[in-house]
Amino acid sequence: MLEDLKEEVCAANLALVRHGLVTLTWGNVSAIDHERCLVVIKPSGVPYETMKPEDMVVVDLDGSVVDGNYRPSSDTPTHLVLYKAFPSIGGIVHTHSLHATAWAQAGRPIPNLGTTHADTFHTDIPITDEIPDDHIRDAYEEATGDTIVEVFRRLGISPDETPAVLAVHHGPFTWGATAVKAVEHAVVLEAVAQMAEMTFALNPDVQMNPALIEKHFSRKHGPGAYYGQQGDKADNR
Amino acid sequence: MLEDLKEEVCAANLALVRHGLVTLTWGNVSAIDHERCLVVIKPSGVPYETMKPEDMVVVDLDGSVVDGNYRPSSDTPTHLVLYKAFPSIGGIVHTHSLHATAWAQAGRPIPNLGTTHADTFHTDIPITDEIPDDHIRDAYEEATGDTIVEVFRRLGISPDETPAVLAVHHGPFTWGATAVKAVEHAVVLEAVAQMAEMTFALNPDVQMNPALIEKHFSRKHGPGAYYGQQGDKADNR
Amino acid sequence: MLEDLKEEVCAANLALVRHGLVTLTWGNVSAIDHERCLVVIKPSGVPYETMKPEDMVVVDLDGSVVDGNYRPSSDTPTHLVLYKAFPSIGGIVHTHSLHATAWAQAGRPIPNLGTTHADTFHTDIPITDEIPDDHIRDAYEEATGDTIVEVFRRLGISPDETPAVLAVHHGPFTWGATAVKAVEHAVVLEAVAQMAEMTFALNPDVQMNPALIEKHFSRKHGPGAYYGQQGDKADNR
Amino acid sequence: MLEDLKEEVCAANLALVRHGLVTLTWGNVSAIDHERCLVVIKPSGVPYETMKPEDMVVVDLDGSVVDGNYRPSSDTPTHLVLYKAFPSIGGIVHTHSLHATAWAQAGRPIPNLGTTHADTFHTDIPITDEIPDDHIRDAYEEATGDTIVEVFRRLGISPDETPAVLAVHHGPFTWGATAVKAVEHAVVLEAVAQMAEMTFALNPDVQMNPALIEKHFSRKHGPGAYYGQQGDKADNR
Repeated sequence: MLEDLKEEVCAANLALVRHGLVTLTWGNVSAIDHERCLVVIKPSGVPYETMKPEDMVVVDLDGSVVDGNYRPSSDTPTHLVLYKAFPSIGGIVHTHSLHATAWAQAGRPIPNLGTTHADTFHTDIPITDEIPDDHIRDAYEEATGDTIVEVFRRLGISPDETPAVLAVHHGPFTWGATAVKAVEHAVVLEAVAQMAEMTFALNPDVQMNPALIEKHFSRKHGPGAYYGQQGDKADNR
Repeated sequence: MLEDLKEEVCAANLALVRHGLVTLTWGNVSAIDHERCLVVIKPSGVPYETMKPEDMVVVDLDGSVVDGNYRPSSDTPTHLVLYKAFPSIGGIVHTHSLHATAWAQAGRPIPNLGTTHADTFHTDIPITDEIPDDHIRDAYEEATGDTIVEVFRRLGISPDETPAVLAVHHGPFTWGATAVKAVEHAVVLEAVAQMAEMTFALNPDVQMNPALIEKHFSRKHGPGAYYGQQGDKADNR
Repeated sequence: MLEDLKEEVCAANLALVRHGLVTLTWGNVSAIDHERCLVVIKPSGVPYETMKPEDMVVVDLDGSVVDGNYRPSSDTPTHLVLYKAFPSIGGIVHTHSLHATAWAQAGRPIPNLGTTHADTFHTDIPITDEIPDDHIRDAYEEATGDTIVEVFRRLGISPDETPAVLAVHHGPFTWGATAVKAVEHAVVLEAVAQMAEMTFALNPDVQMNPALIEKHFSRKHGPGAYYGQQGDKADNR
Repeated sequence: MLEDLKEEVCAANLALVRHGLVTLTWGNVSAIDHERCLVVIKPSGVPYETMKPEDMVVVDLDGSVVDGNYRPSSDTPTHLVLYKAFPSIGGIVHTHSLHATAWAQAGRPIPNLGTTHADTFHTDIPITDEIPDDHIRDAYEEATGDTIVEVFRRLGISPDETPAVLAVHHGPFTWGATAVKAVEHAVVLEAVAQMAEMTFALNPDVQMNPALIEKHFSRKHGPGAYYGQQGDKADNR
């Protein structure tokens, strides 16, 4: 069932390791089949060394396992909330990558400090509000998804233009048109998180030029994009 | 003698290197055979490149060598104190991993600042008190173990729930049900040590949510645990 | 067309990856054939894993593609401005290497704090002025080149003696007699950027000795140079 | 001539690369044949990738080349001053390793902040005084050696007990009974330099316990040493 998507999700999980975003078994990638309303996701706590496409788990949008020999990632309810709220996305990544997680732990959004950030993310990377204690106890993973949707709504940010968020005290989630794009965004996020740490250490009062943010974002995205090769632009994220 | 345990301990020592926790010959892993009251430990100052299972040293709980061609790690007395005081643990790791050692040198416990920490450690990582000068001179390694036991007693922390400590001015010790689990905890400790450094640089007044600490710890540990696959939970540490 | 130069430029692009200066497809290298007034440059947004010499693009000094199956790097206009303004240089590198980019984002020149810097760069690494908003919108990449030329003119720095610059909010450009030398300068720049960060953290009031700057620069460059082997000196950059 | 020592020095130079202490061609290792009063040293500016034992250069204690096809390292006069002043040492290493160089650039000695430092170095790592400008111009490399000898004399430090120094604005030199031991000390120095940076960031007022310094140093060095295997102690540095 969904063999192609299982292969893509498995490869995307292994790409996280190759990009240095993973410690032990932390992190997970999923992708959605929009037509069948089914999500393929990494199994919970399985080592990357031996992970195979057939180990991936298929769940429906209520989280019931439809196919697979393992339990799905414990973060599955968060992924499902995002797929339901952000219908344009096709893949989601969650990691505990060191630098992005440090910003999440510090409770600070990652400001847009340069063209590296602006090339991929249109705004600062938002950080979620605290989850109320009763939600933490009763439906924690779902509540994590709800706070992500809420912060994009409250700030008026498009999840297509800024495909990343920091879950406060926890770590980053990124997404994209495909699982591969979501991984790419996780890689960029970790790089801009590290650069932003160093930038603030060198200049706590740093200011970015808003015109440069618009220019760099529009070089790569939207009707006037001129970065990359012709065929790339359709799936630029 | 104890060939299986020697292989496990040798493999765990080499895993420290693979995880980037070791410089030169620093670091050591041991494991205990609870029935025979014998401990298998790395030999002192032997290079990892050529280390073989038969190089491991077997000592009794008084530290006398029972089997092996080498002298045991100079930290052996510390390991023995811990095995005697914490009867539930099966393996111990000591490293000079860079970030955890920096906290030990700074004389600060590593605070529980996020879910990465809370997933594995229930509390802050405690730091030992100073060893009195006469104990440093006479029975230093044993006194190191005594200060570890003392800080867990004084703070009322369970060594099963927080399987790690910082020996002040020195470096980290971690433990677990097996040598493999103790290595895993050393890997997590180094990651949370690094993240906590960066988190404080970004926000010196950071506060963690206590409800989130309980939630993340209980997701992976205890009767209600739901992280990982079914068979994993018994030996989750 | 220009097969040798294509091979050199392709190899120099791959060397950026090997030296850890590249994330995803960021970064580009070009080289000029001075006689024919043609520039060979990396294609835009093509992955390094499969990059071959025949993928390189040949453009004239107006930016028109003369040979190649791909679109040239979107930074091509910046390269062309530099080749026209600095006639002695033969190769140019642009990266988003983490530490040099942090200085660019912080809006600070990298001061000459030690002999590692002085061995390769005669002065501080200058940082460009802000680009006026209308130039950002209309001819951004060309304007980036113009601000680089302008800062060298304004400060009276020789681009031969300090073959590197930080484009503000963006990242570093380096150059040299060849593409290989430009890559070497990108490697040195990233190392001195990282060292300078750490040096300031340890001592915010640090001062370098001007006599040492002159000594180290002249050990490697100019008529009295005595570093390296005899034949090296002609193409020392 | 001196084939065995050439092989040892070549291998030690390549070990610097393997330990991550080298950027480009920076760094050099030498060793002395005490009986013949001859020094084998790395050639100047030769790439590590192709370096062979026969490329090593043999010089006498006045710096005249006795054997070899290349010019010796431009730092040769510094090495020779040290061999003449510290007769017990057999090998010398110079690097621009990032963390130790940052301390050298900051003009600060590396304080003895923990047992990792105390296991190998008895005191703080001293930093040299400024070289007077006329010496920088006339006999810079020799003057670098003179300031090293002078700081050990002024502070009353034994070069056998603290086999490392920071040349101000420049970088570290380490030494030992052999070239292999000098490389080992360069590895330890870089680790303690990095740890000390992080320790100060976490606690600017940190204090080390003097009794612990004596204990850790004497565990590995001198008549009561009990670290490592029996045969190791004679050449423990």
